[in-house]
Amino acid sequence: MSKEIGITVKKNEDFSEWYTQVVIKAQLTDYAPVKGLIVLRPYGYSIWEFLKSSVDQKLKATGHENGFLPVLIPESLLSKETTHFAGFTPEVFWVTHSGDAEIGDRLALRPTSETLAYSMYSKWIKSWRDLPLKINFWNSALRAEIKSTKPFLRTSEFLWQEGHTAHTTPEEAESEVMTILDIYRKTVEEELAIPVIVGKKSEKEKFVGAVYTTTMESIMPDGKALQMGTSHFLGQNFSKPFDVKFLDKQNIETFAWQTSWGVSWRLIGALIMVHGDDKGLVLPPRVAPIQAVIIPIYSSQPDKEAVLRKANEIKEVLAKCGFRIHVDSRDEFTPGYKFNDWEMKGVPLRIEIGPKDLAKNKMVLVRRDSLKKSDLSFETVEEGVAHMFDGIQEDLFEKAKKLLSERTKNVADLSQFKKEIETGMFLSSPWCGDQKCEEKIKEDTGADIRVIPFDVKRSNAPCIVCGKPSKTDAMFARGY
Amino acid sequence: MSKEIGITVKKNEDFSEWYTQVVIKAQLTDYAPVKGLIVLRPYGYSIWEFLKSSVDQKLKATGHENGFLPVLIPESLLSKETTHFAGFTPEVFWVTHSGDAEIGDRLALRPTSETLAYSMYSKWIKSWRDLPLKINFWNSALRAEIKSTKPFLRTSEFLWQEGHTAHTTPEEAESEVMTILDIYRKTVEEELAIPVIVGKKSEKEKFVGAVYTTTMESIMPDGKALQMGTSHFLGQNFSKPFDVKFLDKQNIETFAWQTSWGVSWRLIGALIMVHGDDKGLVLPPRVAPIQAVIIPIYSSQPDKEAVLRKANEIKEVLAKCGFRIHVDSRDEFTPGYKFNDWEMKGVPLRIEIGPKDLAKNKMVLVRRDSLKKSDLSFETVEEGVAHMFDGIQEDLFEKAKKLLSERTKNVADLSQFKKEIETGMFLSSPWCGDQKCEEKIKEDTGADIRVIPFDVKRSNAPCIVCGKPSKTDAMFARGY
Repeated sequence: MSKEIGITVKKNEDFSEWYTQVVIKAQLTDYAPVKGLIVLRPYGYSIWEFLKSSVDQKLKATGHENGFLPVLIPESLLSKETTHFAGFTPEVFWVTHSGDAEIGDRLALRPTSETLAYSMYSKWIKSWRDLPLKINFWNSALRAEIKSTKPFLRTSEFLWQEGHTAHTTPEEAESEVMTILDIYRKTVEEELAIPVIVGKKSEKEKFVGAVYTTTMESIMPDGKALQMGTSHFLGQNFSKPFDVKFLDKQNIETFAWQTSWGVSWRLIGALIMVHGDDKGLVLPPRVAPIQAVIIPIYSSQPDKEAVLRKANEIKEVLAKCGFRIHVDSRDEFTPGYKFNDWEMKGVPLRIEIGPKDLAKNKMVLVRRDSLKKSDLSFETVEEGVAHMFDGIQEDLFEKAKKLLSERTKNVADLSQFKKEIETGMFLSSPWCGDQKCEEKIKEDTGADIRVIPFDVKRSNAPCIVCGKPSKTDAMFARGY
Repeated sequence: MSKEIGITVKKNEDFSEWYTQVVIKAQLTDYAPVKGLIVLRPYGYSIWEFLKSSVDQKLKATGHENGFLPVLIPESLLSKETTHFAGFTPEVFWVTHSGDAEIGDRLALRPTSETLAYSMYSKWIKSWRDLPLKINFWNSALRAEIKSTKPFLRTSEFLWQEGHTAHTTPEEAESEVMTILDIYRKTVEEELAIPVIVGKKSEKEKFVGAVYTTTMESIMPDGKALQMGTSHFLGQNFSKPFDVKFLDKQNIETFAWQTSWGVSWRLIGALIMVHGDDKGLVLPPRVAPIQAVIIPIYSSQPDKEAVLRKANEIKEVLAKCGFRIHVDSRDEFTPGYKFNDWEMKGVPLRIEIGPKDLAKNKMVLVRRDSLKKSDLSFETVEEGVAHMFDGIQEDLFEKAKKLLSERTKNVADLSQFKKEIETGMFLSSPWCGDQKCEEKIKEDTGADIRVIPFDVKRSNAPCIVCGKPSKTDAMFARGY
């Protein structure tokens, strides 16, 4: 593989350029003709399908159903909850014409669907018998990005799911908020092998219109924090303006208690940043479209036939176990080219089979994450490969946990804070709870409060900004 | 169930009102706040999920992959293939602003994605090694409807899949066109139990920009034909303006041969119209979100416990066979109410279990399609229910085939044609191939050429309009 085809920069030298090269060269995505928009190529979409299916199964298992909402929301409806509208309006795409005709009440392309969903819920919910109502929508959201875009992380249209629920009591709604956050955490930790910190957002950082927002956050190798998913308790903030009410068992009319929540393809961005290396993508086996690629190695025609026969046989055996295996039998490329190609695409395991291996009744395994080689006998292929996948998945998670823990630090002193934040740290610091101190830090250092962890370890030190008694410790970082 | 809750009109007395009541009252869909747009409620979306999964599996098994395209297409790109653009422009939604800023090159909401997809394909395809490229997109299309809308049949945004392929030879592309049409036909006939007539569209009715369009058509109980899916051979009509070319094995630059194809949620509309009856929906078991509902019948507490225990036991047994079973244990409704409720929702099979049944070690089965009752012993529940589902699926298909055959007729005489078309017939008539005759028939009778069947039976009679020798026989009907 020529230099030009492979990744030409090192991850720790030019992280941003490295990221761009990986997403394009591994054929995950490409830039659409409109600035700020991307398309997903099949390899990238396939990762999204695994993620989607994992979340979808967990949502269905907890009593959620899917629905469909159109992409167009009338301005009059979007503006009903005023703080919500004010938050989104700068980035709304507006449809003003259909054909040659001008549209009176302009139509927004959905930046999020609370307003549309709840205008429907108010028709569907009449009594406690209709609750809880727990509907999820797999769609896209559109928010015009003015800053420079980054595939998966910042684009004007992105794929996501948004869930919207209504409940009879605040307790039930708050418990839903946590159920969802836990589904998200499990998906990210167990499938994507990325550890997260779960907790609440500050008032300043919460979702516009929510009572509070819970979040999961992680830190990327460049020292910037990434919000990986949020689950909001909306209280009655939307049910009141949207008239989502029900007759309770005492026949009293009550406004419903609501939640909304979402994860997006941003998780694929995290996956790339956390696990990738100088050779390109590194995919955890659970979300890899191809889990192992078999490269047949031969120089003569009889060898070719024997090796290919064995390669396909191994593929069949592994496919029967439910593994996703590909035999790269392309004649026009050398094994060396193929090694590089599949390494760039992050396939977790390479299996090499040549005439010498056939003679010894074994094959060579090469792990993508560690590049370590080992032999595996044909007789134990199922257990051997399954074991290898488990090992890779686990090691990637451990490595990512190490990254997170190295980047996380308790700091109670402001000058130390300023130094550490420059090196890309995720800092836990005492905070008085005043938004002014939060804004001051942002102004001085560029760092936000990313999350106030549920399991926060209180330093009991004074607020890092104003020196007054702290109410909590919060985690600060610069973010994506 | 009160009259108001159930369907209040008869299917053969006011078909249009019957249809509207069914889609709303069975909770498949509801009207969104923007005219012409609908939302899908979970029951409706669930049917879409079964359809989607059936098509998706068949596409993947034939080497197709999924991707994602954004919803926004710049006007300059959409207008590159001129006849295509002219065809769609009256119904395009235009985005002119993002936030407060005006957008220079207006953005169209995708009416279909040929232009966007092929502008990407031209970057991705370099040599024969990159072909065939076969990508499918599960998204929605937006076409502003000025006529009155009908859920699933005519809405300004609809869910569908659109596939786009590129090939090295016209033969390979044309074979792809047929592969897809066959996938569609199988899905509709085997899953939805609706028979279709497959063939070509006339030049006048083909997709704007295609060389030719293949289609599957069926006739609805009101005598209007419905286009159920189309698969287009695009030739090089798009590859030339969009520069989709490749170096062939002789290193000669050649424009690719292309296809595009799609089915939409319109199929759900067909499902409702073809199988529904005066009580509401009738769903074929293969696409029913709930295949059987178990209604426990009791009047005393001890009976209730025994009956519910058995009901849940039966549910478990059937769920283990992969069947989708629901126990309706709602206390606030009578069995009679529940019968009507699930009949309206079209659940293929009702299972009643009461104390007398328990004593006799059996349950009562009631088929939704025929309303026929039968007993089934607890011992043979798996085979009994599986057999029942097969029978319902088959009988619905047979009944629909009968409808199609009763509505289909060969007519070679114009005055008879005019009489028959008034009664809602699907007429096979000789045609000279001249578009003027096609337009004349449309003007005089409102009927279009829906399809020229692949297995057309030639009458060899003169053209039904002009009397000149006919080139073929074509199938005419008024359509949706």
